[in-house]
Amino acid sequence: MQRTVFFISDGTGITAETLGHSLLTQFEGVEFKQVRIPFVDNEEKARAAVRQIEQAAERDGERAIVFNTVVNPELCSLLATSRGLVLDLFAAFLAPLEAELNTKRTPKVGRAHGMSGEKNYDARIHAMNYALAHDDGVAPEYDEADVVLVGVSRSGKTPTCLYLALHYGVSAGNYPLTEEDLEKMRLPDSLRPWRGKLFGLSIDPERLHQIRQARRPNSRYADIRQCRREVAEAEALFEKEGVRWLSTTHTSIEEIASKMLQLLGIERHFY
Amino acid sequence: MQRTVFFISDGTGITAETLGHSLLTQFEGVEFKQVRIPFVDNEEKARAAVRQIEQAAERDGERAIVFNTVVNPELCSLLATSRGLVLDLFAAFLAPLEAELNTKRTPKVGRAHGMSGEKNYDARIHAMNYALAHDDGVAPEYDEADVVLVGVSRSGKTPTCLYLALHYGVSAGNYPLTEEDLEKMRLPDSLRPWRGKLFGLSIDPERLHQIRQARRPNSRYADIRQCRREVAEAEALFEKEGVRWLSTTHTSIEEIASKMLQLLGIERHFY
Repeated sequence: MQRTVFFISDGTGITAETLGHSLLTQFEGVEFKQVRIPFVDNEEKARAAVRQIEQAAERDGERAIVFNTVVNPELCSLLATSRGLVLDLFAAFLAPLEAELNTKRTPKVGRAHGMSGEKNYDARIHAMNYALAHDDGVAPEYDEADVVLVGVSRSGKTPTCLYLALHYGVSAGNYPLTEEDLEKMRLPDSLRPWRGKLFGLSIDPERLHQIRQARRPNSRYADIRQCRREVAEAEALFEKEGVRWLSTTHTSIEEIASKMLQLLGIERHFY
Repeated sequence: MQRTVFFISDGTGITAETLGHSLLTQFEGVEFKQVRIPFVDNEEKARAAVRQIEQAAERDGERAIVFNTVVNPELCSLLATSRGLVLDLFAAFLAPLEAELNTKRTPKVGRAHGMSGEKNYDARIHAMNYALAHDDGVAPEYDEADVVLVGVSRSGKTPTCLYLALHYGVSAGNYPLTEEDLEKMRLPDSLRPWRGKLFGLSIDPERLHQIRQARRPNSRYADIRQCRREVAEAEALFEKEGVRWLSTTHTSIEEIASKMLQLLGIERHFY
């Protein structure tokens, strides 16, 4: 069974997609064709969206499911004229919030992800530049860092640092554990001043082997025995030095970032 | 007036934060202290969350607002015992979806952002490595790119490329327009084979001056006349060459990415 799902928004569509997708993951065995229609901020675009919803219904033989976060009531009414199950993700909660806050909302479109404020932009770019400048141990000086990720090569440090920067504005450096560090079974002296900021990432050796193999096929670097040894040593090192750590193998970047911020008590720098 | 807001989830909390924050932006004049409580997946953690909600109410003299995406009904009942306005962001939509899909949901916690599937992970990391390897015109060969961002230095190309990679799995290269390109008022020959993938970014000269000034104070690079000239020439070049473009000045990275994907008809590569 295939069902078409629309995410309709007057802004980026990120809120509609995020909640809508979360809801869909609760239903197994249905194949969803997902279509994003962002920036629906006038009648013409709303009518075009209605046409797309009608066409999907004709094609699928079933009405489409529509996750809607458009704020303007007239445009919502227009969307409601379509043959679709239109779920209005904002409307359900605005009334109780108005009652609770004892204030009327100020409807403005596309606010949710309009992080165009200079302060927010600067915080985010600053964190991104920090991550790029302190990637892979190139500048092991972490005074300004909120967190420093430590782990063997290809354990997921760089994507996590960049995600922390772009999503939370958090400045993260990262340092790859070298064979020398692992043989000595101690943190390098250069990392000691920032011990409280360290966070370890580990990974299943088989998965590490697979990732490294794609990068440098049949190298010593990718050899499964090498991967097993490095991972075992890195985890022993984290335990010995009291560095909190997580395995990235069955954990998405979102989950790693969220868990790490919680464990280290770091607040996001912007919304 | 300050009100404490909790985002409570059995996973990362991203869905609760995203919709919750979108709703809050509709209310002006209220200061919200926002607290994320992710990974609430057992009774003990739910009771700890209830205690935090109680403490906030005592501190603020007003009950807290709680955006909840916990899936487990028993844990939700526990959270509902707190003195807080508990808005259950999933519950409202699961019943109509069950009816529409004629199937019961399969409640599993923390699914929404559990993108730990190897295929998703690989797509994302591939796109991120692509962006890093093709940043700033270092490898102007864009066969594999989904899109190539073009613009003057500091117009926002790199953060947009990395966001496209991490959020959408889209492979984006970027090429900085040089003074030579601008003087000749034509795209460099090296870019011509990928003309259909080009997308221009521009920026207000005053804002560009401010950003460059922070980077290289009082340089020719940061000079306001230089910024004005480069921006005017870049925009003229986009128009002349038929390259679609956007200004990043009052547009967040989320908005730029969403608009660009819509304009170029590029689909996200994972959820």
